[in-house]
Amino acid sequence: MVVVSAMGDTTDDLRDLAQQVSPLPPARELDMLLTAGERISMALLAMAIADLGHTARSYTGSQAGVITDSAHGNARIIDITPGRIRTAIDEGAIAIVAGFQGVSQDTKEITTLGRGASDTTAVALAAALGADVCEIYTDVDGVFTADPRIVPAARRIERITSEEMLEMAASGTKVLHLRCVEYARRYDMPVHVRSSFSRREGTWVTDKPLDDRDGATVEQAIISGVSHDRSEAKVTVVGVPDQPGKAAAIFQAVAGAGINLDMVVQNVSAAATGRTDVSFTLPKSDGASAMQTLQAAQAGVGFESLQYDDQIGKVSLVGAGMRTHPGVTATFFAALAGAGVNIEMISTSEIRISVVTRADDVDTAVRAVHTAFGLDTEGEAVVYGGTGR
Amino acid sequence: MVVVSAMGDTTDDLRDLAQQVSPLPPARELDMLLTAGERISMALLAMAIADLGHTARSYTGSQAGVITDSAHGNARIIDITPGRIRTAIDEGAIAIVAGFQGVSQDTKEITTLGRGASDTTAVALAAALGADVCEIYTDVDGVFTADPRIVPAARRIERITSEEMLEMAASGTKVLHLRCVEYARRYDMPVHVRSSFSRREGTWVTDKPLDDRDGATVEQAIISGVSHDRSEAKVTVVGVPDQPGKAAAIFQAVAGAGINLDMVVQNVSAAATGRTDVSFTLPKSDGASAMQTLQAAQAGVGFESLQYDDQIGKVSLVGAGMRTHPGVTATFFAALAGAGVNIEMISTSEIRISVVTRADDVDTAVRAVHTAFGLDTEGEAVVYGGTGR
Repeated sequence: MVVVSAMGDTTDDLRDLAQQVSPLPPARELDMLLTAGERISMALLAMAIADLGHTARSYTGSQAGVITDSAHGNARIIDITPGRIRTAIDEGAIAIVAGFQGVSQDTKEITTLGRGASDTTAVALAAALGADVCEIYTDVDGVFTADPRIVPAARRIERITSEEMLEMAASGTKVLHLRCVEYARRYDMPVHVRSSFSRREGTWVTDKPLDDRDGATVEQAIISGVSHDRSEAKVTVVGVPDQPGKAAAIFQAVAGAGINLDMVVQNVSAAATGRTDVSFTLPKSDGASAMQTLQAAQAGVGFESLQYDDQIGKVSLVGAGMRTHPGVTATFFAALAGAGVNIEMISTSEIRISVVTRADDVDTAVRAVHTAFGLDTEGEAVVYGGTGR
Repeated sequence: MVVVSAMGDTTDDLRDLAQQVSPLPPARELDMLLTAGERISMALLAMAIADLGHTARSYTGSQAGVITDSAHGNARIIDITPGRIRTAIDEGAIAIVAGFQGVSQDTKEITTLGRGASDTTAVALAAALGADVCEIYTDVDGVFTADPRIVPAARRIERITSEEMLEMAASGTKVLHLRCVEYARRYDMPVHVRSSFSRREGTWVTDKPLDDRDGATVEQAIISGVSHDRSEAKVTVVGVPDQPGKAAAIFQAVAGAGINLDMVVQNVSAAATGRTDVSFTLPKSDGASAMQTLQAAQAGVGFESLQYDDQIGKVSLVGAGMRTHPGVTATFFAALAGAGVNIEMISTSEIRISVVTRADDVDTAVRAVHTAFGLDTEGEAVVYGGTGR
């Protein structure tokens, strides 16, 4: 069974068409429009396979039983009923399914799952069909210990747990879509990320023990890799009255505008003024909306001013071995200090440490950390394409 | 309720894409591909209407309940179950339906109805919904007494019966698709053919009595119009043994290749040779296939040779008044003779006379007949666009 995306710029071209017709098209109709993209690619792929002498049948998300909620443009898969796909496979045909799309359970309307969601469709169908593995074909050789454009000595990761992959994806590694990894983790579906341009092994994302060729279990690496993200901005709310509920009012206002915060830091209150500063990071694309929301809330909350900084970057170290190797945090900060990188914010999970730095310092920080944890290879990594997914 | 076609050259562009992938793509996949065309135009139209402040919802053929047989690429509508369309209309929304497509009853596969079949979708849905009228918007003002590019004095027909319209369409008048007229006739659905570019009244195709403004029934015209067709070729099978079953064997061979014949003429047998010639016309697009089929059958049937002539044209006079006005045939042939047009084949129905002439004589013949039956107007007809549909 194959899941396809739309070809090349098709989805963007269709969005442009919609923009020409209406500045704010109804979400239902935008989904109807955009789903034409995968329809075209899946039919063409079925023809190409038929031309090679095999039987192939294409199916829309609806026909393949991809059942979603009704959130047009960003629907979530709530069930998979792949009866027609199973029949096709049982009859010896290659089933080709349109990614990125489904049909809503209540209203039977065509929905889309949001950007990059063809990977999620693939993992969800693989799980529903009880497949051994879901292979994700992309334009790079797999997941690397760091972005090879920044660290030429980065190595391809042979195997990574879904928990580590989640942290890598959430902290800026773009090879796999976050929702796809969540789905794979929930349904325990091994994912093999590999290049469309070679037959090389890629990266296995799996929680199953991995055996080497002699049958011995391969030891889990302490550190998976170093990820980075330059897509966020920092907002600082200056002079917040140090009274119960004031900081909460700020976060409620931002959440009410549908904005997800990432890192949050509250300074220790200066006793003399009775005021404190609250900083948080958020996607740059939400920056303008957050600032508007906060300005509207200023009188009610009683803070003094707002600062907006979009010249920041985030560097994260991810590895399940952190749990059991207490020296990791010290080595991480020593590496950054040795490279002269200033740290503005810190956040951690059980298996990740993230810091906010100046955007200009991101490359230096990634290289220093990558070297400090012995991740550098001898030669340069081989990478196809330049943009990732 | 609105039925849309694909925009501009979309369908041809998609066909080209398929050709690049496979010289003979599976019909099921070609249908899946081509139906993307109306999907795009219906979503964009819904957005444009929403932008004007009205509620519009687009529906695929399948969603609209257009149930067909399984003949991919040329499916026939066998049922219409327009529950979702009726609900949309009841809720005050404008329903927009993809023409040209449906879903097969047995296999639930996406089908297409063949070229020009958006008109048929419209008539079928209009009938299923109990509409008062189905308006077909095209690039000309309606149906004319002859092609205005040949006869500048041709007039727009105000009203024509479905039987006459069927004969006009079948004999070359391209404004309405033959199958659409058949459907309108079967379900007694008045069709109003009019221009997309003006608010003028067009041509009403209806079997209901038409009243003029004072309430008196308008008299039915004797002659509806003159149509012509240059898309056919003539095949002559020379020296067929004049024995029972030999001519039938020829027609069986051609029918077995899926080719529909139009006019057929068998010469009187020459007693001396015991052989006869059989001529028939067929679409030029089927010419090569028919000749191959006949060559393969030559030894079995025992005919002498084949002739192929694609420089023919067909001119037809259509009018329900022929039934009761015996002079029509004589006037028709006198007009052709007076214009010096040679006749090669003749066929008639109750309300139509057709002749085959040289292709070069078609324009002369159409003008002569149009004038002879008093169809010329004073001024020139107003026509938009140049190609018809």
